[in-house]
Order: sequence, then C-alpha cells, then structure tokens
Amino acid sequence: MSQPVLLVRGDREYLVEPGTEKGTDLGVLEIPADVDPGDTIETHLGNEFRVRRLRGPDLFHHFERTGAPMVPRDVGLVIGETGVSRGDRILDAGTGTGVLAASMARAGASVVTYEQDPDFADVARENMALGGVADAVDVRTGDVTDDVDDLEPSSFDVVTLDTADAPAMVARTPELLVEGGFVAVYSPFVESTREVARTAREAGLSNVRTRETIQREMDFDDRGSRPSTAPVGHTGYLTIARNE
Amino acid sequence: MSQPVLLVRGDREYLVEPGTEKGTDLGVLEIPADVDPGDTIETHLGNEFRVRRLRGPDLFHHFERTGAPMVPRDVGLVIGETGVSRGDRILDAGTGTGVLAASMARAGASVVTYEQDPDFADVARENMALGGVADAVDVRTGDVTDDVDDLEPSSFDVVTLDTADAPAMVARTPELLVEGGFVAVYSPFVESTREVARTAREAGLSNVRTRETIQREMDFDDRGSRPSTAPVGHTGYLTIARNE
Amino acid sequence: MSQPVLLVRGDREYLVEPGTEKGTDLGVLEIPADVDPGDTIETHLGNEFRVRRLRGPDLFHHFERTGAPMVPRDVGLVIGETGVSRGDRILDAGTGTGVLAASMARAGASVVTYEQDPDFADVARENMALGGVADAVDVRTGDVTDDVDDLEPSSFDVVTLDTADAPAMVARTPELLVEGGFVAVYSPFVESTREVARTAREAGLSNVRTRETIQREMDFDDRGSRPSTAPVGHTGYLTIARNE
Amino acid sequence: MSQPVLLVRGDREYLVEPGTEKGTDLGVLEIPADVDPGDTIETHLGNEFRVRRLRGPDLFHHFERTGAPMVPRDVGLVIGETGVSRGDRILDAGTGTGVLAASMARAGASVVTYEQDPDFADVARENMALGGVADAVDVRTGDVTDDVDDLEPSSFDVVTLDTADAPAMVARTPELLVEGGFVAVYSPFVESTREVARTAREAGLSNVRTRETIQREMDFDDRGSRPSTAPVGHTGYLTIARNE
Repeated sequence: MSQPVLLVRGDREYLVEPGTEKGTDLGVLEIPADVDPGDTIETHLGNEFRVRRLRGPDLFHHFERTGAPMVPRDVGLVIGETGVSRGDRILDAGTGTGVLAASMARAGASVVTYEQDPDFADVARENMALGGVADAVDVRTGDVTDDVDDLEPSSFDVVTLDTADAPAMVARTPELLVEGGFVAVYSPFVESTREVARTAREAGLSNVRTRETIQREMDFDDRGSRPSTAPVGHTGYLTIARNE
Repeated sequence: MSQPVLLVRGDREYLVEPGTEKGTDLGVLEIPADVDPGDTIETHLGNEFRVRRLRGPDLFHHFERTGAPMVPRDVGLVIGETGVSRGDRILDAGTGTGVLAASMARAGASVVTYEQDPDFADVARENMALGGVADAVDVRTGDVTDDVDDLEPSSFDVVTLDTADAPAMVARTPELLVEGGFVAVYSPFVESTREVARTAREAGLSNVRTRETIQREMDFDDRGSRPSTAPVGHTGYLTIARNE
Repeated sequence: MSQPVLLVRGDREYLVEPGTEKGTDLGVLEIPADVDPGDTIETHLGNEFRVRRLRGPDLFHHFERTGAPMVPRDVGLVIGETGVSRGDRILDAGTGTGVLAASMARAGASVVTYEQDPDFADVARENMALGGVADAVDVRTGDVTDDVDDLEPSSFDVVTLDTADAPAMVARTPELLVEGGFVAVYSPFVESTREVARTAREAGLSNVRTRETIQREMDFDDRGSRPSTAPVGHTGYLTIARNE
Repeated sequence: MSQPVLLVRGDREYLVEPGTEKGTDLGVLEIPADVDPGDTIETHLGNEFRVRRLRGPDLFHHFERTGAPMVPRDVGLVIGETGVSRGDRILDAGTGTGVLAASMARAGASVVTYEQDPDFADVARENMALGGVADAVDVRTGDVTDDVDDLEPSSFDVVTLDTADAPAMVARTPELLVEGGFVAVYSPFVESTREVARTAREAGLSNVRTRETIQREMDFDDRGSRPSTAPVGHTGYLTIARNE
C-alpha cells in the first residue's frame, strides 16, 4: 500500500493515509489507495488539494504531540554525528512524540524505542503509522533500563537517549553497542549533561564530547545584512561518545 | 558483494574493500570477500585487526580529500533541515570530497552530483566506491548549470549546493524540485549568502531562511562545568528554502 | 549645586534636578537644592520617595529618547576596549539619545559630540543636564565631517562613531587622535562594518579588529542550569582600531 | 608629579614612572620628572622613544601578572553594567593582577580591594603605582569576608567580586551597598555561578541576572565577510544584581 501523504491547499495541510477519508472545512476528501505525490484531489465540494510526499521536517508539524518534539536541526545533528543510515539498528529512549525515531527510520534504520508513559506510547505508534515507518519502529512501553538484560549484546549501531535517567543507560551502552557504534544524548541542563559525560567516560566510551549549538537567523534587507535581533534559542546539549 | 569495511587496531584504521589486499606496517592483510563486521583478521605477521562497519562520521576521516570535506555536523544539518531519506532523489553540486553526497546516499537517497574538476570527480567516484554507495551516487563531471535544461523537471526532492555560483542554480530549482521539495545551500561568506537568499525569494521559493551555527564544546572537570575556552569555529551559513 | 538625583518609590522612578518641583500621581515633590542620596522626600500628600544617586544604567531608562539608546553592555564594551577614563578628550558622533556621551563623561572624560538633527541635539543637551554632565559634554549640531578641518590635530584620545557615514570619519581619525588613541565604531550591518574596517586599515590605523557580541542569559531553576531559551539579540558590530 | 607614561618604539613598549631611569637593549632612558605625552626621549645611545599616555587596555599588557588579568572586554562589561564613574566608592575582591581595580579608579572611582595572597597584594600595589592610581586604590591583604563587620554599612556604590567564595560575600552586599548600588560577580564555572545567583536572590537583591558573553572576530577579505574560524573563547559568567 502507498505511504501516507500530505494534502496541501494554501495554508491547509493534512497528513493522511491512502484509502481513507478526511473531512475538512472545504468538504470531504476521499484519498485513493493508490494516490501519488503530484496528484490533485478534489473534495466533494470541488475544492482541489495537491498531493505531496511527506518530508522529514513535516513530521515536526504533523505528528500528534505528547511533549515538545525534537526540532529538525537537532534531529539532523544526531543523524550527522552518529551517521545513522540504511541498515542501522537503533535503540532509542524516550520516544516522546517520536520525531527522532521516525526520522532515523526514514533514513533506513530499524528502531527499537522505549516510552514510559502508555498513553504517549500509543500516540507514538500512531505517529509511526502516519510517518510511514510503522514497520521499522518498534515502540515499546516501559523503561529501557528495566529491559537492558533482555536486549541482545552488541546488537545496536547507535543508542539515542532523551530521558531524565540517561546516565544509567549510558553506563550500559558498551554492552549493547557494536564496536564503533555511537551513543547520542540530548539533555537540557548542565548538571544532567555533566553526569552523562562523566558516566560515558567511566563506562569506557571514547571520544566523549558535549556541544551546545547556538543558531542565529540572518536578516537580509535593503539596509544590509546582520544577525537577527530575534535569535534561535537553546534547545539542549548534545553529548556524543563512541564505543571503541 | 560485501560493503567496504574498516579495519581497526589501536590508532590504525584502514577503509578497505572486501576481496582485496592491504599492506600495513604490521604486515599484509588479506580481506576475505565475505568479511563481516565483528570479525578479526590477522596480517601475515600475525597482528590482529578488528573489522568494523563504516559509519557516516568515518567518511570525514577516510575519504581522499580534494578540499575541506563537510563536517558531520553540517552534513547532519542539511539532512535534518531537508529530511533526506530513503527514496529521495537528490541533485548535488559541487561534489568536492563527496562526504555530503555519500552521506545522503547512505540515508537511502539516490544522488546526482556535479563536480567541475575532472580530477576531483575521479577522486569522488573512488570515494563513493569506498563509501559503499557507488550504485546510488552518479558523479558527473561538469557544471550543473550547463545541464539544467537536460534534467527532468520536477524530478528532485532536494537540491544541495556548495558552489561559488550557487545563486544561478538556486534560480532554477523551482523547475527541478517536486512540490514541497527543499533546496539547501552552504556558503561561507555573508555576501554570497545574501545573494543566495535574495535569489531564492525572487525565484518564488518559500520559507527562505539563513542560519549560522555556533557550537561550543563544554568542559567538565573537577572544578566545574563551563564552555570550552577553545570553541568550535565558523564553517558556513546554511540557507534553506522550500518549493511551495 | 547638587547633581540630578533619582526619586524612587516602588516601581516609580523620577530623574530630577535639585531645586525643582516634580508632579506625580502621588502628589507634588519639592526637591531641595541640597538634596542628598539616602534622603527621604514626601509629596504634599505625604507619600515618601527615597533619594538615590543616578547610576550609568539608569541613563538608558531615564534619558528622553530620540532613537534606540546604546545598551549598558555596549557602552561598557566601548569604554573597556578604548579605556575611556578621567582626563580623556573624546570626539563622538552621532549623539543620538546621548547615553554613550554621558557615560564617558561620567567616567571623567570631556566629550565633544555631533548630532545632525537639531531637535535631537536639543534633547541630547537636556539629557546631558539630567545626567549631570552638561559641563563635560559639548553637544554640537551638525555633521562632524564638515568640521574636521576646524578641529585641533592630535587633540583627541578616543573617537567614537555611531553614524551612517562612519567610514568617511574613520579616514580622518589619524589626524585627530593622539598617538596610542583609539577609534571605536558601532555599526549594525555587515556591509557598513566591512567598509569601516577597510577604511581604518587604509588610513594606517593599527590592530583593526571587528567583533560581534552574543550574550545569553542563564536560567537557574530547580531542574538545573541552562542558557535561556530567550537569548539576548544582536545589537551591532564593534570595530576598534588604534592610532600607532 | 606626572603620571606614569608609556615609552614606545616599534614593538618595544615600557611603562615607566617620571623621574626614573630605564635600561633597554637600545640604551638607557632617563625619564624627566615633567615628561609629557607627545614628547620624544633618546637613550644614551641616541635611539628615540615616543612618550604616550597610558590607556586602559595597556594595563592588560603592562601590569605584572599574578594570574590571568581580566581582559578589556570584561572590564568594560563590569563598568557598563554597573555604571562605575567619578565619585563611586567600590569594594573589590580579589584583586589579582589588579586590572579591574585600576580601570575603575581610572574612571574616577575610589576602590578598596582585597587580595588574600600577601605577595600578590604587593604586586598589585606596584601595579596601582604603575597605573597612576595608587591614591585611589587601597589594596588590602586578607579575606574581605573577615572584614565585612568593620566596613561601614551602606558605604559602597558597587561591589565587584572575582573570588572562589563570592557567594558568601554576595550575601553581605545588601548591608554594604547604597540603595541602587550594584554587585557584579565574575565566575568561570556554571556551578559557582548558580550559587552566586541563588545567594543574590536570597539576600533580597533585585534584577539578578547572569549572562555569558560570546564574541567572534569578523574576517573581511577579498572573498567576502564572515565570522572568524578562530573565535574568541569563554572567559566567565557575569552576574549582576542591584540593591533595591
């Protein structure tokens, strides 16, 4: 079956699954099972929507939220610094809205992701279906640290963590990662980040480094070029370490 | 056939293709055609090397360089902000060392990339083989702007540019991109970046934005936590725009 | 006569001159000619105000504005990088609200400052009186570049510029500055800043350098410590050069 | 008597007191008691040096160091954010090399500064003489927290702290500061900075805020304009609070 697609008309955007119906204020859309990006679909009132393939940054806007989803920039930094790609096996916790897990699956990885809150996990599963990656992402309800002993040793290429108890999990990553595998941890506060970095070093991971990323929009107008007076804020510290 | 692998022993690391031979100062390594990550291989002098799967950040260190390769952070920002993923068709210029093209191919995309310098293009082709993505990346020698009329309209999901004449190419991207497709441009200087953003707006692309990224290492020691006094420098401005 | 003082009661703050009267919503204040910081004054309705000495950062809030006044941070950077201190003779253009001129005078310098707009110059003169530095700051109406030939050569320790035509003036600073004197230029846009730096080098000034300053508030709460998600924006580029 | 002056010839720079002798590799300089900036002095071998007035940024290079002196930028931020000016009474700890204390004195303040190390205090006293501010700066040997009870209440306009035990001192600043006075604390690490901010709030100081300052040099060359790839590093966090 076809993947979910975006239906777009001006500011209206709907993420829908083929073979379903979507009610809008401009009429009902029947999405054919074989819908293709580039098609045009009319509502029963005759209003046209364009069909578009879903892209990574769309996940940020269209996934149902159970918290602040990871922004495309931070998804990219994780993927770039760990090299997530086709064939990778990823262990991820906590799932949250699921933008990171879905994005890594879209890059060809298979992902096992843990979410402690059962309701959030249900939403994340729906988001994986909407993202067209339900087959590639296994959303498990629970605390990953409880399951570590049941996970196969040296079976993950990358471990990604965005949880309050990340340090406890970081300590276990040398068992879980293949040689050369990476762990990536997002943490908003200095104190927890420090603990993550300390644990990574004590666990014998190599090349442990923590970076904060500051981004600024550039304003280009008739008067000249300058950094925006309304800069992009802090999201978190990213700690990367390698199993080697 | 198997993919190229890394052979690792302490600080020694070699990126090799299965079924070949590799001479080292510790003896000759014969790499079996069916070599697997996790294997151990001995040189003819009995020195052991571990076999490791190649990961994205390794490209930065192991590709033969024809210029400064794009750092993993910037590769990630392009992938994150444009959502490069499986099935994407990418148009890329200029290839350079090829780290970005290879990384996007590793995330499941098929890439057409243009490099003006014939020698650099040859190196890039070798790098694609080393990166295990020779099938997914078509390295073309020449200037992409000369070929635009021969490229199929609306046939690319993402256009990535890292060339001195990026503005001329940006002006053509609305023809080349699918609806909802992205263009991403790296440019080191304010003046050229301004021109890129202006051209993108004039070409009718939407959500044109330019960001500079500042990263700083955090130092954690017994005295406390602080940003490093040796921060990470400027690499370039990243301009993103969408075809919609 | 005493200096102007601040009268403070809760959120109410008035900058007043001794020997005058001030009407407030809590009644009329008669400010004695010999008023001292630390005194308490009552309105005719019996509401008490505390008397406080004016401090530099208060200028930013209490001066009548004819444009965005320079923030205390930028005033400090100019003073720190040029070493403005007692006995310095400063040439300043354009005056604007006058916060920089007044702050340098408060640090013991005598300042000649040029403002093109006659109405703005009048406001600046009133601000100098309110800042208690009317004797130390000579606010001249006009364009400083028209007057350069009439200014005494080698008679200024520091030249500070915040005008659109700063480059033309920078070119003349080697004549005006003493040996070892500094020129400091604030400019909001990259293009004009580049021109300032180029002119400074061509004029033979030494140690020409341009810096942008990014500041971020730190948030400390029960969860931990982190940079604020609402950072402080760009104000301008500061170019410093020395006459030597 | 005249103030100390700089003698300059090419890269050679000496900070000397009038009426003294200075041996150099180009011969001996006898500095007249009435030497004036702008004069030329010859060594006994006939080599000319130019006489220059000392400026604030020169302190950073010419003071004898007992540790890393505060850079002109940070001196400026303290002065700008607290409004240090003529007539201010400042309490400063710890003195260190004394660049901040001398700079505030040069802006017209009288400074009491504490240095725990007796040898460092001696060097600081010599630096104050070299800086021409021996009369305005009282360098006391000892720990300021031991002396707080002997200091006159409400007698300081500004308290500046750059010591490991700054929080203990911050707690006492409401007694020592006049109404509207400022405390400014430099601290290199997040943990100590957090403690400073917490103590300031608990002590009832208002408008407590901590900022980190990131500066980057701009490079302007024939290819274009961009932030330097060799940025200026972290020096410390600056916490400012007001007594009101």
